[in-house]
Amino acid sequence: MINIQQDILPEKERPIGVFDSGIGGLTVVRSIINKLPKEHIVYFGDTARVPYGPKSAEVVRTYAKEDTDILLKHNVKLIVVACNTVSSVALDVVQKNSPVPVIGVIEPAAGIAAHTSKSKRVGVIGTLGTIASCAYTSEIRHHDPDITIEGQPCPLFVPLAEEGWDNHDATRLVAREYLAPLIEKGIDTLVLGCTHYPILKDIIAEVTGPAVTLIDSADSTADAVLHLLQSKGLLRNNDIPPEYVFYVSDVPHKFREIGERFLGRELRNVEKIGNIHIT
Amino acid sequence: MINIQQDILPEKERPIGVFDSGIGGLTVVRSIINKLPKEHIVYFGDTARVPYGPKSAEVVRTYAKEDTDILLKHNVKLIVVACNTVSSVALDVVQKNSPVPVIGVIEPAAGIAAHTSKSKRVGVIGTLGTIASCAYTSEIRHHDPDITIEGQPCPLFVPLAEEGWDNHDATRLVAREYLAPLIEKGIDTLVLGCTHYPILKDIIAEVTGPAVTLIDSADSTADAVLHLLQSKGLLRNNDIPPEYVFYVSDVPHKFREIGERFLGRELRNVEKIGNIHIT
Repeated sequence: MINIQQDILPEKERPIGVFDSGIGGLTVVRSIINKLPKEHIVYFGDTARVPYGPKSAEVVRTYAKEDTDILLKHNVKLIVVACNTVSSVALDVVQKNSPVPVIGVIEPAAGIAAHTSKSKRVGVIGTLGTIASCAYTSEIRHHDPDITIEGQPCPLFVPLAEEGWDNHDATRLVAREYLAPLIEKGIDTLVLGCTHYPILKDIIAEVTGPAVTLIDSADSTADAVLHLLQSKGLLRNNDIPPEYVFYVSDVPHKFREIGERFLGRELRNVEKIGNIHIT
Repeated sequence: MINIQQDILPEKERPIGVFDSGIGGLTVVRSIINKLPKEHIVYFGDTARVPYGPKSAEVVRTYAKEDTDILLKHNVKLIVVACNTVSSVALDVVQKNSPVPVIGVIEPAAGIAAHTSKSKRVGVIGTLGTIASCAYTSEIRHHDPDITIEGQPCPLFVPLAEEGWDNHDATRLVAREYLAPLIEKGIDTLVLGCTHYPILKDIIAEVTGPAVTLIDSADSTADAVLHLLQSKGLLRNNDIPPEYVFYVSDVPHKFREIGERFLGRELRNVEKIGNIHIT
């Protein structure tokens, strides 16, 4: 195994850093691996403090700063904030503290949503923090001020995805309850504004019907990573297979089972780091 | 307002300390207020790190030690661990670090469950951490080794209770899915082994039917508090109305709405304390 984190590596060879509040960000890693199969990746999931979604912006900003510092210690060439809540309320904190480029999950998905909608009505689903921040609303309106955005927090989708109930009638009922108000308002585009939601994509599509296009923030973020590395000449171009290293602040119950479902492959090279304290 | 936390107060006048991973413990506070209406109460909810349920025992033990220290700073005469996960995997940590008596939520409910069951089959529902620990199993068998205990983690019940979906068909479907294996095994007693579950008591009772007795760990814990204070001569006997003070490590989204549903009354005297860091 090569040491992808040594600081004498040429910039192209340095890993992409990805962090999330927990394991949801592994859906973003999965998309990055698909689109950029030669890149090394270092992931940090703050599983000892997960979830960030219901927590206050103040607390999320403190956590985001610390998560950034952890990735920077691992010599990353780029930071991907694979957490919609952090991208919504603390992207500026990450950018301010990072000497390397930063990509959040909001901007890429917002741009695609703005260009996809014909009815000029876009739905956004996410955590309480993401929806309360109106970050998607601002970003989408930045592309097209005539678009109306309908936000809907869906707190039950995260635990349903973690339970693996991706084809369960309870999930169907929950999805109908959350999505009915958006469908009534005539949306033709729906942003899956949380990294857990791609797991429930089939059921969400079933409820919204074929007239609504789903925008997966994981896929659009991976595209943005590709474009950014290309434009900066930082794509790794080496046929030695890449390394993936996963750091977590806790190894919670069912970690491997849930993680592998999200990552879509075997989860290896997992290491617990960090100790959480209250002062 | 009297200062209930000053250390010159006579022991009887000192507050009962209650802590939980978040706001679920407010159902225990509600039961304590009902049964001991003269007692002062200081509550700490670790809302910046909630939930503890899916996290590893190692992490929960670290957090439990710190939560204990916070209550001890407030001059409590007794500590109530109003969190089933902490009571399951870290009660010894709290006891070891506390000079005042400690009551967890497991032992009181386990005792009542053991004496209630005629079929000698008791169901226990709780978080992943609580069920994995087998703490209820050990406690119930301590009372009656002939009882068979059927444990079932119910991770979706916490977010459903926080959504306030206490009479929703999705909750009914989830409850049926979780409880069917317990009912099939012939349980006649079911321990609600998580402080959030009393919110869903009606739907749980509807699914289990009248042949199954529900044991609410909040109520049995309040009884244990009453007995312990009585036996030690520490009951407050003062007609000046008691004070309730609520400390939290974060003020998350929907905090007041959810908290008041759990507490069953207006939530006043709430103060954010503490800062969480990773080292």
